[in-house]
Amino acid sequence: MTTRVRMTPDERREQLLAHGVRLLSTHSVDELSIDMLAEEAGISRGLLYHYFGNKQDFHRAVVRKAADDLIGVTAPPATGEPLERLAASLEAYVDYVVANYEGYSSLVRGAAGGNADLRRIYEEARGALTDRIFVAAGDGDGVDPVLGVTLVDTPASRLMVRGWSAMTEDVVLAWVRDPAGVSKPDLLLMLAAALPGALSGVPAPD
Amino acid sequence: MTTRVRMTPDERREQLLAHGVRLLSTHSVDELSIDMLAEEAGISRGLLYHYFGNKQDFHRAVVRKAADDLIGVTAPPATGEPLERLAASLEAYVDYVVANYEGYSSLVRGAAGGNADLRRIYEEARGALTDRIFVAAGDGDGVDPVLGVTLVDTPASRLMVRGWSAMTEDVVLAWVRDPAGVSKPDLLLMLAAALPGALSGVPAPD
Repeated sequence: MTTRVRMTPDERREQLLAHGVRLLSTHSVDELSIDMLAEEAGISRGLLYHYFGNKQDFHRAVVRKAADDLIGVTAPPATGEPLERLAASLEAYVDYVVANYEGYSSLVRGAAGGNADLRRIYEEARGALTDRIFVAAGDGDGVDPVLGVTLVDTPASRLMVRGWSAMTEDVVLAWVRDPAGVSKPDLLLMLAAALPGALSGVPAPD
Repeated sequence: MTTRVRMTPDERREQLLAHGVRLLSTHSVDELSIDMLAEEAGISRGLLYHYFGNKQDFHRAVVRKAADDLIGVTAPPATGEPLERLAASLEAYVDYVVANYEGYSSLVRGAAGGNADLRRIYEEARGALTDRIFVAAGDGDGVDPVLGVTLVDTPASRLMVRGWSAMTEDVVLAWVRDPAGVSKPDLLLMLAAALPGALSGVPAPD
């Protein structure tokens, strides 16, 4: 027996966004339509337009929700060695890309291809993931060993952590398309080792 | 006094392509037009259409020529230590991106954004740059120390060299947009060190 629960408009909107995000796991952003969501959620198109003004607003809201989910699921554990925390975060990222390949790769493509809305959301999400590495390293006096290297927040280290993110994104998307016999544990190990590797040539601050 | 030199059709086409590539240093691929090239080269649109069937063919030919130029100028010196050869190749790459920012960044955007023609040319160029690292390392018996790490051609090492290329591209484009006080020598040093860094977690082959 199903009980219909009365939801507030905010709760209803959240529920519809969750439906949209689920659709994004198997569809690109461009494929995502109000019609598709109406069918999936079992409500009228008119009501959907009430919640999301137009297709652009709908896309933006769903992609932002998906980006927030990604930031949430990849939050590293609060405790543990830096290497373990990074590995846990990386594993969550890889699992997310595997489970949401269509939507995620279309976000990356759309952002790179010049869609200003997608670009903004994408850059914010990448910025949040990058900041986290500096925050994790900066517990205490802002200088802390991450995986055996010292990470000081300078323009040069920002540049290389950003580069490591780009590497991780490219490698994980390529691996999901074709693992070529590389196991997930090996993938995680290689990517984790590549972070101190990317930072190894960063000059010490003056 | 200018002497008019009679050129073969192939030579004339090459000369027009060189004009197109020059335009690409300050214009995106989308901005590049037959009209613009006609004006730059001082010949009629009709003659240009004789050499390049339509706008798509023109774009493809110019972008391919630009990619060939990139592969050419970044060829590492035939001799020297691996680190020196890599540094020379990286410096040529950075200089190329600085000198051709508009066209190069539009190629990267267009390829990522799903333009199939640009994507193919871009992937071929990146593949050539990546292959070069394995060829340089593979002199002799296919196993050779590059910058202190052993580089064996496996799917795992291919994945990480590919990732290092993605990192290099992202970091250099970001640096050209905003160096944030990072000097070119420091940039080159960081990117060179990041290659063995990216490979440091690659498992030894069975």
